[in-house]
Amino acid sequence: MYDQLAAGGPGEAVAAELSDEAWVAALLDVEDAIARSACTVGLVTEAQRDSALRAVDRLREDVDVPRLARDSAAGANPAIPLARELKRAADDPAAVHLGATSQDVIDSALSLVLLRAWGQLASLVAAVEDQLTGLADAHRSTPVMARTLGQQAEPTTFGLIAAGWWQGVATAHAALADAVGALPVQYAGAAGNLRAVGNEGIALHDALATELGLADRPLVWHTDRQPFVAVALAAARLAGAMRKIAGDVVVHSATEVGELREATPGGSSSMPHKANPAAAIACDGYARRTPALAATMLDSLDSRSQRGIGSWHAEWQTLRDLLSLTASATSRLHASLDGIVVDAEAMARNMTLSGHDAATADTGQAEAIIDATLQQGES
Amino acid sequence: MYDQLAAGGPGEAVAAELSDEAWVAALLDVEDAIARSACTVGLVTEAQRDSALRAVDRLREDVDVPRLARDSAAGANPAIPLARELKRAADDPAAVHLGATSQDVIDSALSLVLLRAWGQLASLVAAVEDQLTGLADAHRSTPVMARTLGQQAEPTTFGLIAAGWWQGVATAHAALADAVGALPVQYAGAAGNLRAVGNEGIALHDALATELGLADRPLVWHTDRQPFVAVALAAARLAGAMRKIAGDVVVHSATEVGELREATPGGSSSMPHKANPAAAIACDGYARRTPALAATMLDSLDSRSQRGIGSWHAEWQTLRDLLSLTASATSRLHASLDGIVVDAEAMARNMTLSGHDAATADTGQAEAIIDATLQQGES
Amino acid sequence: MYDQLAAGGPGEAVAAELSDEAWVAALLDVEDAIARSACTVGLVTEAQRDSALRAVDRLREDVDVPRLARDSAAGANPAIPLARELKRAADDPAAVHLGATSQDVIDSALSLVLLRAWGQLASLVAAVEDQLTGLADAHRSTPVMARTLGQQAEPTTFGLIAAGWWQGVATAHAALADAVGALPVQYAGAAGNLRAVGNEGIALHDALATELGLADRPLVWHTDRQPFVAVALAAARLAGAMRKIAGDVVVHSATEVGELREATPGGSSSMPHKANPAAAIACDGYARRTPALAATMLDSLDSRSQRGIGSWHAEWQTLRDLLSLTASATSRLHASLDGIVVDAEAMARNMTLSGHDAATADTGQAEAIIDATLQQGES
Amino acid sequence: MYDQLAAGGPGEAVAAELSDEAWVAALLDVEDAIARSACTVGLVTEAQRDSALRAVDRLREDVDVPRLARDSAAGANPAIPLARELKRAADDPAAVHLGATSQDVIDSALSLVLLRAWGQLASLVAAVEDQLTGLADAHRSTPVMARTLGQQAEPTTFGLIAAGWWQGVATAHAALADAVGALPVQYAGAAGNLRAVGNEGIALHDALATELGLADRPLVWHTDRQPFVAVALAAARLAGAMRKIAGDVVVHSATEVGELREATPGGSSSMPHKANPAAAIACDGYARRTPALAATMLDSLDSRSQRGIGSWHAEWQTLRDLLSLTASATSRLHASLDGIVVDAEAMARNMTLSGHDAATADTGQAEAIIDATLQQGES
Repeated sequence: MYDQLAAGGPGEAVAAELSDEAWVAALLDVEDAIARSACTVGLVTEAQRDSALRAVDRLREDVDVPRLARDSAAGANPAIPLARELKRAADDPAAVHLGATSQDVIDSALSLVLLRAWGQLASLVAAVEDQLTGLADAHRSTPVMARTLGQQAEPTTFGLIAAGWWQGVATAHAALADAVGALPVQYAGAAGNLRAVGNEGIALHDALATELGLADRPLVWHTDRQPFVAVALAAARLAGAMRKIAGDVVVHSATEVGELREATPGGSSSMPHKANPAAAIACDGYARRTPALAATMLDSLDSRSQRGIGSWHAEWQTLRDLLSLTASATSRLHASLDGIVVDAEAMARNMTLSGHDAATADTGQAEAIIDATLQQGES
Repeated sequence: MYDQLAAGGPGEAVAAELSDEAWVAALLDVEDAIARSACTVGLVTEAQRDSALRAVDRLREDVDVPRLARDSAAGANPAIPLARELKRAADDPAAVHLGATSQDVIDSALSLVLLRAWGQLASLVAAVEDQLTGLADAHRSTPVMARTLGQQAEPTTFGLIAAGWWQGVATAHAALADAVGALPVQYAGAAGNLRAVGNEGIALHDALATELGLADRPLVWHTDRQPFVAVALAAARLAGAMRKIAGDVVVHSATEVGELREATPGGSSSMPHKANPAAAIACDGYARRTPALAATMLDSLDSRSQRGIGSWHAEWQTLRDLLSLTASATSRLHASLDGIVVDAEAMARNMTLSGHDAATADTGQAEAIIDATLQQGES
Repeated sequence: MYDQLAAGGPGEAVAAELSDEAWVAALLDVEDAIARSACTVGLVTEAQRDSALRAVDRLREDVDVPRLARDSAAGANPAIPLARELKRAADDPAAVHLGATSQDVIDSALSLVLLRAWGQLASLVAAVEDQLTGLADAHRSTPVMARTLGQQAEPTTFGLIAAGWWQGVATAHAALADAVGALPVQYAGAAGNLRAVGNEGIALHDALATELGLADRPLVWHTDRQPFVAVALAAARLAGAMRKIAGDVVVHSATEVGELREATPGGSSSMPHKANPAAAIACDGYARRTPALAATMLDSLDSRSQRGIGSWHAEWQTLRDLLSLTASATSRLHASLDGIVVDAEAMARNMTLSGHDAATADTGQAEAIIDATLQQGES
Repeated sequence: MYDQLAAGGPGEAVAAELSDEAWVAALLDVEDAIARSACTVGLVTEAQRDSALRAVDRLREDVDVPRLARDSAAGANPAIPLARELKRAADDPAAVHLGATSQDVIDSALSLVLLRAWGQLASLVAAVEDQLTGLADAHRSTPVMARTLGQQAEPTTFGLIAAGWWQGVATAHAALADAVGALPVQYAGAAGNLRAVGNEGIALHDALATELGLADRPLVWHTDRQPFVAVALAAARLAGAMRKIAGDVVVHSATEVGELREATPGGSSSMPHKANPAAAIACDGYARRTPALAATMLDSLDSRSQRGIGSWHAEWQTLRDLLSLTASATSRLHASLDGIVVDAEAMARNMTLSGHDAATADTGQAEAIIDATLQQGES
């Protein structure tokens, strides 16, 4: 349940793209595109293609997701019962699942799911980046104590802190956009050599990539899981960038510090006076679960022979969980920063503990560094 | 979806105990028990208790789980809106959530959820143990090559291999049973010192433990997460014991080895002749996700001051995922071993590759070791 | 280098037991004990035993650890070249490595190494426990604000906080002591069935356990890694318990809080005025590396057939790193708490931020809970 | 010890760059470059620079690494005692450690260490890539059964399998080269705003980057750890690519398969007849430890305020371990593939188990896919 906390918030659109229903829809989209591509390269007739497309359309309306899950148990993957049902539903099954192995459909569908989820998540990340550059700009010269190892160190500006937050998010954002943008189609057949579709295999593969909007190389990656791993790791990097900010919000919001305050802080079931930075804390709670999932994905590189044994099966939920947690963390950080109160007076008052006066404090090259940092994003 | 593959199988009962609905039910059970216990120790009247119990009963029927999830976002936990609704629903709210903090209700409820899920899982584990001792006994003198580092080593018996499988499961089973059996109630109030309920606090705490069937010590563990971590780690150990067996089933089932064959092996969407050990592979796919989740739970030991910041929030789904994955792995291993075909002739034939003759092979003390191993379980 | 920070401190004795030299010494101790045990059960003569013991003694003096490491590469383990050198060095090699496989020697030696390291670490842990019960007792009624989610919550006593710290350490201490105390001898031969030593095999196995002070059951655990995993997980739990305390020390030591101060805080290369809780921070730096290593050990449960493929080899350094990090974390926490200054006035002053007066603050059942908590340790 | 198995092999040069001595040397190189850069931008005189350089040179000869480790304990980092010794050793200390904070020196030095280690590792990786393209080319048309889920599937060629191996390595190689190539200098002072060096700060920062051959942006990343995390994750990806190959070598080398055989397989301490693929197994043993370390680095993104609390300290050994394990895995895989015997007859014989004839087997588009795959590397 807690994992759906983002429901109702801006993370809802991402969650919808990662649902079981969305995944089954993507599996059907791949089967649909296989039939179209097979026709494009002349392996099936238009009539055969249309028969397959009608079968796909029927399942789009009729598919019983829980039953499909149950039927998946026998072969340990959902593409097997789905292809069987499609063949059954088609008048002429020639174009259905043509030349494909289960993994072709599942990998391509998962690429689609990730691409679509990222499409929604990216705008949420951009909104957080706008919040951060807004803070950096508004507080470019607001003095605050830099803190190292829990101790006040020297004066700096709050804008520089916010610019540093932005930098981490922007770097990881770029890495994730690159990794998702490089997600390839998978279509290579049982042995990875396009054996079932003969000389038209590579043309069909490339047509399928175009049809689905996925990258057309490498030609086969059944047990080279680098493309999915790259997405997983970049998502964990992005979640980590969010978590760093959330953790800092908690420090600045501490009762004894009081420099930040969420606009709608959380209450307590027993202490009505409390003003917990609940959104920041929830962000941390989601984000801190991502490094372990990234490790699981790295472990899935150990993919035996021509089909991962367990390692492949472990990817499906792990990847979706990773994107979902990253989206939830992003969504909650956005809520935390939305209207966050920056108390410049508290910042000034705290400086006196180390003998500094905000009015005269030397904050070094903070403003020049803010400019240089934010320019990275523009270049 | 894939995570519900066990649906329909014997893991379904465990999954039901780990659902969002089951968790909300447990939260309400704890609120129910608080009202009862408060009356037992004389802090509220019977009328006040009954008013609270009626409110709990009303929510048991009415609660809208998705809406509760959404309402949880504000305070980053579900106990806050739940207590608020209970107070609203009670004529006299005096006994509702009495002296409790959110974490009291959530930790106790999670203990209940784990206890109940384990109640279902334990019998499934016992069924696998029966399969394993059955194999050990039936094949105590069936010669097979021991294999080390992928190479045939020396003759042994298949019963000794199965006894070793059993040993790992039995050890982890005992560790998990111990950890679950020690799960404590949580009831200590916002600061962990029972401040809101005065001198009756410890009596109320102990009455609550009795009411819920949970351990009564320690008195407070808001930021000492050893009890939950112990459960998490033992679950991962059990999943790992299952995975070891599943991996061995895959090796013995390899085309070139052919010594084992699942009774209902998996098919392929493109190669109808294949006989994949699909249940064993699915077991591996679930189990291999548990070490990372165990690491996340170990990380949650870093629980700041008197309430974990994010670390606490990360526990809820992680613990449920861990038990769920362990149950799915157990369920699929049970399916793999159910009626598994042990081909003693293939075992004998393979021995000739290393120059051994099954009829005369020296299998050392295999039978004595089987006896000593299985006796561990009886003692 | 940083990993040897504990050098010179009380962690040095643990580190010495985990060194490469200590491991080679343990390998030789096992070979020594095999020769003795073989004689005890009558498989070799006293002269043969003495010939083997002399060879072991010669290697104890002569062994070139870096060269052994290099020679280990060919077979991917150090027991192979060591056994070869022993056989070469013995006039009569009959009793050398009798009936053993490499894994017998390595697993038993690693059990010894862990047992010896724990022997040193246990007293260090006990010293930290004494510090914690000392703080709990001295400050049983010192008022301080409980803090939840970074916010001041309600008054409690610093003694109760310290008692909670103790509780986590004591629980994990007990778990680790149990796991180490159950470490078994390994002696089963290449196929795990004592084939090479015939009917005397089990007697020899048990004599070896007695000789080395290790548990005598299970009889074989070459690919049932639960014993080592149990130690690994308990060590990570202990490190996590230390880390929780270290993190809290950092919070209480923050400039704006000022309630704790390490007796000899760390300096800064650029800010001479700073008083960093450097020992607590170093503790955290060591301890936070343990959850991942615990996950690696859980992953090694996936141990194929009769000898782990890579999974076994990954254990050796991982287990030693885990104990070493736990020892370093313990050692640095001990330094942090040694003479730590508890500023009761600062605690009282901070309470006023939430409108509380230390002189009249209600701290609930703090003292009764402290008593109940510390009694757990005495029972 | 086992971690130095690569010693003597081609991994030795990488290990040397990751040693404690190499790290201290890099710390001194950074101090050296600070003095030079400060002079370049006119903040110190040539005489002051030379005084600092002489002090650095003296420490290069005299530094006692174990003593430095011990002295590091007080402040929890080695840059503090090193800077103190340099100031003591210089006639005029004006240019020593000018404007720097400990983290500036440590981060820049770690960047240097990683850059230098990669410089050595890259050629080893390239050598493995040559082995793989060599196999792909030599066996582009050698028929072998593709195996999925442990079962023989359909015919393919061994060259296509090798091309797939290459693809994973090449992808991760490129990612690691990019991440290392982007490693920035760190120089920003205690608060991250260059406060101590005034208007010349950015110029000095950029001069230092040039001096050390590191990237000049971002201007400060004290608590934005994306640059180090990117290196860590890419190293784990590379190790995973190696492990995939090693695992496949073990499968193809199994007694019952017999299609591959290491040129100098490992022996056994008890079974002289065995031919273990020991180098491949050792590769797996190293590589499988990297996902967990990558997770630790992702966790270090949670870097509090302006200096990571424990998270920063955990990076130093973790990053060095990651590179070292990746190098060891690469080195052992190189040994495994060096002269590996590909038994085409065994491959053909095994095909008959599935009713295929190597002479007439249809291997699909294997050769065209090999060409397309290897072209990726050339483009």
